[in-house]
Amino acid sequence: MEKIRNFWGWGFEGAGLTPVEQRALAKRVQPFIAIAPEAIVPPTSDELHLPTSRIKPPDSLAPWCQFDAVSRAGHTYGKSFRDIVRALERRWELPPDVVVSPPDEDGVVAVLEWASQIDAVVIPYGGGSSVVGGVEAPANDDRPVISCDLGRLDRVLEIDTVSRAALVQAGVFGPSLEAQLRPHELTLRHYPQSFEVSSLGGWIATRSGGHYATLHTHIDDFVESVRAVTPAGFWESRRLPGSGAGPSPDRLLLGSEGILGVITAAWMRLQDRPRFRASAVAKFATFEAGAQSARALAQSGLWPSNCRLLDATESMMTGAGSGDAHLLLIGFESADHPVGEALTRAAELARDHGGVVEIRGDNESASREGQFDAADQWRGAFLRAPYIRDSLVCLGLISETFETAITWDRFDAFINNVRASTEEALRAVGAWPALVTCRLTHVYPDGAAPYFTVLAPGRSSGRLAQWQEVKSAVMDAIAAGGGTVTHHHSVGRDHRPGYDLERPELFAAQLRAAKKVVDPRAMLNPGVLIDP
Amino acid sequence: MEKIRNFWGWGFEGAGLTPVEQRALAKRVQPFIAIAPEAIVPPTSDELHLPTSRIKPPDSLAPWCQFDAVSRAGHTYGKSFRDIVRALERRWELPPDVVVSPPDEDGVVAVLEWASQIDAVVIPYGGGSSVVGGVEAPANDDRPVISCDLGRLDRVLEIDTVSRAALVQAGVFGPSLEAQLRPHELTLRHYPQSFEVSSLGGWIATRSGGHYATLHTHIDDFVESVRAVTPAGFWESRRLPGSGAGPSPDRLLLGSEGILGVITAAWMRLQDRPRFRASAVAKFATFEAGAQSARALAQSGLWPSNCRLLDATESMMTGAGSGDAHLLLIGFESADHPVGEALTRAAELARDHGGVVEIRGDNESASREGQFDAADQWRGAFLRAPYIRDSLVCLGLISETFETAITWDRFDAFINNVRASTEEALRAVGAWPALVTCRLTHVYPDGAAPYFTVLAPGRSSGRLAQWQEVKSAVMDAIAAGGGTVTHHHSVGRDHRPGYDLERPELFAAQLRAAKKVVDPRAMLNPGVLIDP
Repeated sequence: MEKIRNFWGWGFEGAGLTPVEQRALAKRVQPFIAIAPEAIVPPTSDELHLPTSRIKPPDSLAPWCQFDAVSRAGHTYGKSFRDIVRALERRWELPPDVVVSPPDEDGVVAVLEWASQIDAVVIPYGGGSSVVGGVEAPANDDRPVISCDLGRLDRVLEIDTVSRAALVQAGVFGPSLEAQLRPHELTLRHYPQSFEVSSLGGWIATRSGGHYATLHTHIDDFVESVRAVTPAGFWESRRLPGSGAGPSPDRLLLGSEGILGVITAAWMRLQDRPRFRASAVAKFATFEAGAQSARALAQSGLWPSNCRLLDATESMMTGAGSGDAHLLLIGFESADHPVGEALTRAAELARDHGGVVEIRGDNESASREGQFDAADQWRGAFLRAPYIRDSLVCLGLISETFETAITWDRFDAFINNVRASTEEALRAVGAWPALVTCRLTHVYPDGAAPYFTVLAPGRSSGRLAQWQEVKSAVMDAIAAGGGTVTHHHSVGRDHRPGYDLERPELFAAQLRAAKKVVDPRAMLNPGVLIDP
Repeated sequence: MEKIRNFWGWGFEGAGLTPVEQRALAKRVQPFIAIAPEAIVPPTSDELHLPTSRIKPPDSLAPWCQFDAVSRAGHTYGKSFRDIVRALERRWELPPDVVVSPPDEDGVVAVLEWASQIDAVVIPYGGGSSVVGGVEAPANDDRPVISCDLGRLDRVLEIDTVSRAALVQAGVFGPSLEAQLRPHELTLRHYPQSFEVSSLGGWIATRSGGHYATLHTHIDDFVESVRAVTPAGFWESRRLPGSGAGPSPDRLLLGSEGILGVITAAWMRLQDRPRFRASAVAKFATFEAGAQSARALAQSGLWPSNCRLLDATESMMTGAGSGDAHLLLIGFESADHPVGEALTRAAELARDHGGVVEIRGDNESASREGQFDAADQWRGAFLRAPYIRDSLVCLGLISETFETAITWDRFDAFINNVRASTEEALRAVGAWPALVTCRLTHVYPDGAAPYFTVLAPGRSSGRLAQWQEVKSAVMDAIAAGGGTVTHHHSVGRDHRPGYDLERPELFAAQLRAAKKVVDPRAMLNPGVLIDP
């Protein structure tokens, strides 16, 4: 049975928390944060009253078009806290005039041609899991809006088992991609939290962060070549394992967030499925000591697949620990060779920094996937977190995350400042007492990517305004501290203020110029990344 | 005593082959290839008769300017075979009107301002070791030409030992950079063959390939942020360990070959100096079997620092072997942990593919640098190869290299086709019998970078025309076979025909647009990469 996408919140219908689970959640949170007396009931489809669509497709495109309220509402927003609140408030202010799902690349060309004829805006739409306003219509733009859903471009077109690469259509979601690769014993092994509800094209367009905590942290290095359709024609790079021929064309599309073309397919570098795994947990008395241990590990050249540091509160809230220590999760995996020696050395490095290490699994000779239930469980919880977020929002809370990256030399001061600024802003808007927790999702030899989670009481009316204040303060603190406005969530519309402070001014001008070449009328996702 | 750069050939004066060495070289080559009866005597400075400079600097810049013939001749060409032949033929057709060596970044700004005032072309010049026509003046351009030599920007400005990174000026050469890092026990460990005579800025501008055969093959991943001066102003990216905020600004400058700005400094990611090393040599009966072994190793996730396959003839010519087998050189290094287990597994993979493995060194617990004489020797020979090339050119030969990259699925056919096309072209121009040898310099999970060396008899007049024919045939064969026109030598002027076939047409248009933003009058290295 096909899963039905939830039009107002994360993921699939029926996959969210049950009423029993939601009550348990409320009970768990209540000691820390005031929740609303009455949980908000999510909208149903019969409550949707959208403005009439302003456009009518040509007959040739009509079969791909959906004008119904659920489709249009479901494509109005991404899935950020702000999006969920707006949906819960039954606000669908700028729904697309139509959702078009072309069946193939030629179909995408046809959609762009139609859009050009009627002077419409086109928003490339993969899984719609953006948490940065990356798939919503521009305000202050009178043009009709087409949400171009790539969902039907969902096939692996070609597999090269010798080079371990595959030509994959951009609209494929994570589980389907892995299912299509599995018979060939290959895997992309890219597991963003949105894995189940995001697409390859979206990963490439947003420089998505995967489950590897070191080395290949983003999708970037797995991209061998890209195909895209632009209003000015096809854009296709050559399949190459490496090249030094000018600036990398692919790196211009990586992170282009739909403004430079609709990504339709990519040759992706794949891997053999891992057979060897080993993991450990190290407990630290302070977050700083844990971070120093993570730094040593990141600089060791051991390249662990997992190296995630959770602060004590976050450990408790996610059920990973009891809250009495900061946890560093260490993991190694390989399809080729045992990784026990690497884990032993990693454990040594953790102990050098005061960590108390517990070896969780050392499946040296394991070959059955079934032996890795612990990892699967963690993955399950990880993938379920956004559903819990939706329930928390229904309970009246402000529940949001933000993430960044910073070099190690500024790390401790940066974390403290960002945390303090966040807490101060929460207090200032009356969203207090609140929880601000931190983990490191990815680590590098020269720095780390801190990921903050905020859980705060919201005003029954005005949660968005509260959060907007806090978010502004956060972006300012990050910019002032030398971090990036986003490590892997991307820029979209919501991060524009921070992004504008961060990127070189001349680079923004170059990006505008590059856009003008392929999209002279600025029909593709205007206002995202740059003002065209 | 300061070394003096050779104005007509590779490297430093007095560092080339001695007459005795040159005679021995002639003897060694003669059995394979006909050499000229009389070696060509290189030009001396009193033979230089250059056209008068067309420009006069303002007083403020005069102290930085050199108008003497040796300086101008030395900045007329790079160091390709074509460049050496032109120098030996006493042809200095388009020398720069002046060589300017600004003392710092502000000086670079002043140079660009002056160039703008007099409508001059500016060629950013690092070490001048380009082998692709990357630092020579454009033909068919009447504007005066300024060679902007970054050599005085040669300092490490700041070191961050916590993040293991340094802010380094762009004009620093390899040995000086490493000498400045050594007191801090840090190293960039980027060793292109031009290490002694090329600069950090040049490495970044050309996406230089270093000594790591896997993983971090190019300088790209070691760049944390870049500073550049453009005619439109400063360009500076933020120091970040990683980011997902839009397309990477740095990746636009990486490979920009001087057309998008003069790179003045960069924050570079550094490493601890390696303490553990292990290496082996595997012999194979066929090049294909060696390549399959290299592929297995590249796909294993072991990430050897060395994984270079030499064909039998190349092994013999470079003294690495006796010519009876194809050699795979395998090496591991680490500053943190023993690498013996990795070498053992690599040796196993080589044996699986029919390799006969000899463990050369397994310095598990070695800590003294002195123990690695074998590696140092190889490095010495590697760095000396271009001097030998100059002597071969003096002996009347065509002596040149070209390199590319290709995915594994097309590897065998590609190698055979490119080799056959090269040999056929050599025969067609009468440069026969000749040697065409091949090695793999870098390997990837999805492909490899083959590097070809050509040694052929040249006509006493017309070697360049001969080579031009061959080079054209090579570029066509590479493009037709799906390779890249350059894996790490860059595009310059010489690779333009191949590059124009390779990059997406729309990307070239975007590059032109990006250039126009920062360099509206196309003063920076016009004609390199794109026609502005």
